[in-house]
Amino acid sequence: MKNLKGRAVFAQSGGPTAVINASIAGGLIEALKQDAITDVLCSLHGIKGVLTEDFVDIGKEDEAELLALKNTPASAFGSVRYKLKDFNVDDTDYKRVLEVFKKYDVKYFFYNGGNDSMDTCDKISRFMEKEGYPINVIGIPKTIDNDLVGTDHCPGYGSAAKYIATTLAETRLDAVIYESPLVIVLEIMGRNAGWLTASAALSSLTGYDADLIYLPEVPFSIEKFKKDVKAVVDKNRVCVVAVSEGVKTAEGKYVGEDASATDVFGHSALGGVCGVLKSAVKSMGIKCKAIELNILQRCAAHCGSLTDIEESFESGRQAVLHAVNGETDKMIAFKRASGKDYKIECVGLDLNSIANAEKMIPLNWITADGVGLTQEFIDYALPLIQGEPNARKENGLPSYAKLKMIPFKL
Amino acid sequence: MKNLKGRAVFAQSGGPTAVINASIAGGLIEALKQDAITDVLCSLHGIKGVLTEDFVDIGKEDEAELLALKNTPASAFGSVRYKLKDFNVDDTDYKRVLEVFKKYDVKYFFYNGGNDSMDTCDKISRFMEKEGYPINVIGIPKTIDNDLVGTDHCPGYGSAAKYIATTLAETRLDAVIYESPLVIVLEIMGRNAGWLTASAALSSLTGYDADLIYLPEVPFSIEKFKKDVKAVVDKNRVCVVAVSEGVKTAEGKYVGEDASATDVFGHSALGGVCGVLKSAVKSMGIKCKAIELNILQRCAAHCGSLTDIEESFESGRQAVLHAVNGETDKMIAFKRASGKDYKIECVGLDLNSIANAEKMIPLNWITADGVGLTQEFIDYALPLIQGEPNARKENGLPSYAKLKMIPFKL
Repeated sequence: MKNLKGRAVFAQSGGPTAVINASIAGGLIEALKQDAITDVLCSLHGIKGVLTEDFVDIGKEDEAELLALKNTPASAFGSVRYKLKDFNVDDTDYKRVLEVFKKYDVKYFFYNGGNDSMDTCDKISRFMEKEGYPINVIGIPKTIDNDLVGTDHCPGYGSAAKYIATTLAETRLDAVIYESPLVIVLEIMGRNAGWLTASAALSSLTGYDADLIYLPEVPFSIEKFKKDVKAVVDKNRVCVVAVSEGVKTAEGKYVGEDASATDVFGHSALGGVCGVLKSAVKSMGIKCKAIELNILQRCAAHCGSLTDIEESFESGRQAVLHAVNGETDKMIAFKRASGKDYKIECVGLDLNSIANAEKMIPLNWITADGVGLTQEFIDYALPLIQGEPNARKENGLPSYAKLKMIPFKL
Repeated sequence: MKNLKGRAVFAQSGGPTAVINASIAGGLIEALKQDAITDVLCSLHGIKGVLTEDFVDIGKEDEAELLALKNTPASAFGSVRYKLKDFNVDDTDYKRVLEVFKKYDVKYFFYNGGNDSMDTCDKISRFMEKEGYPINVIGIPKTIDNDLVGTDHCPGYGSAAKYIATTLAETRLDAVIYESPLVIVLEIMGRNAGWLTASAALSSLTGYDADLIYLPEVPFSIEKFKKDVKAVVDKNRVCVVAVSEGVKTAEGKYVGEDASATDVFGHSALGGVCGVLKSAVKSMGIKCKAIELNILQRCAAHCGSLTDIEESFESGRQAVLHAVNGETDKMIAFKRASGKDYKIECVGLDLNSIANAEKMIPLNWITADGVGLTQEFIDYALPLIQGEPNARKENGLPSYAKLKMIPFKL
């Protein structure tokens, strides 16, 4: 809807990334400049802060600290695990959101998150439209999983991919120093889509890469895994494996689940898959180190991609520009220009076309042996990890954004 | 011994660090400049390469690539797990070393490693002296554990400490975003000395720090741990724990060992301690994420300390200068100047005064509750993590040293 004037509310939701704060920073700074936006508010803990009227007044923050959000990992305004019901089934929450939007004269709502958050965003937008409440709702995407459809890639993926590729190279350098056989298993996030695990292939550019990459897109067999490992160890002594937490057998059973069922110490969440693979390697009489990258891969802002940071910032900024320009029920997506040079453009994509869908790695980007990525993947992912973060430092450590977090009161 | 002229052999041994290559690079580059040194050789896989005459000719390498070793983690010339016997018991290896030294006219020997390597270095030096073979032998220290005696700190510690403090801060930022209670357990290396685990305390400078730090210097009780965690969770909801892999009960039993004995999946080496602590937290009904930093903490050159890199380089350089100046049976140690400004000086320390001893954290640097570090520790460790690595990059990834590794033949 064009020519809306009123307050803007931003919120963050879902698992954090190294750059989700860069996205919201881009949005907040742009919103502060817009005449159509009278006050800029952040809701605490996603949609929950709207329900409870927990807002922060961004107008009281220093711009330098908002800019420092570009290099501050995780969600500065909190997150929430809360999925709104279908409003045709239960519209209690929606009515409350509408009540709060009316009370605070909210005319712009920006939701910064992954798949579920885009779904929330879409539902709120449609409910408000149904109720005839004038508001522009735009989703600002983030997910290290890179599994949102309709966008070339997702803010957050490039930084996680850079951390994974860098860490894998360092790990390989560490692994090769002795003369005895050694297998390293790196367990990487991504329950259904293999984008993150695939980023291990980027380490080949350093000369120190993974020998075997197991993606959730390819059915996993422990017997084939053992054969693969044996072949590499016989040839090269050292074998570095990147495996997705989400690899499944041909029967569709998560490989990591086997472990959790029988592990007396409740180690299940402590790297189900890498524990299982380590046991398999040890049963072959070969030394194995299993490393679960865990949340490190999603919060390692110190090894972020400048490209990812700047694109994330821009996606937040574009969300505001699109909203002020009258768009609603959209997510900001990246469209990659064709041609040799990497260039992206931000476009508004219908939210209902993306919510609740997942983008997998194209099967023709996976090598015939099922344990590697083709040049097409490298060409796709390499531009996303370029550039160093150039973060503010103090005492030899990151100097994170220091926000005042002053509550907004009517 | 003064005025020796002949070849120099360098070797690396023990577990790698992010900067052990910086140390050897300093030595190699300085050695190439010295008239007293006719050829500069690197032995492959520590002392083993001497026994098997596997030498690389450093004179054939480009200086730019030798300089790139400053930012290339792990041991470029390989490592070895091999402890020389006492030569009074069995001098077979020593006689072979002497034979090779004579054959290659080796007059300078530099051994780059930790505790065991300094012991090897000392034994070789003393054997050569006993046999009347003129050679100057100098140890170039490295260890992330920071447990060598007689030196203010060890090359490698600063970079590992910086990585740990940075990672801990990022992890805490990630942990606090939800409103539900959460415990994060970071398991950190250091079997007997707590220096690495203590470095988690440096993250307090970022405002995002550890709540509880468990060092091997303090007897560990699982019951006290649960009480400590409960108190923090009750007060702050989120509790971030840094624990040494080497914590022991009052009876001297490694806490991590309990797990390995009973874990049916052989998870023992997969973070014994953090698995045990995770189980303890889960038994309290609190969600817990256990993260073993594993080898990441020793190879994360991308998060290295420039101070550590430059000091490591200088220690290698000083080893050569001390040797050419006639010193032998010494290790290069750091002496910190008194006064407010951080400044170190390289000195030669008798090898026999350091081999086989371990330096622990002074007990008065541990807070009375046993789970924190005092300002004395911060003042000691903070200067060691200053400065960014400024490494050569290509494709958004580290560009490691590309050595020719041309064998040296007589």
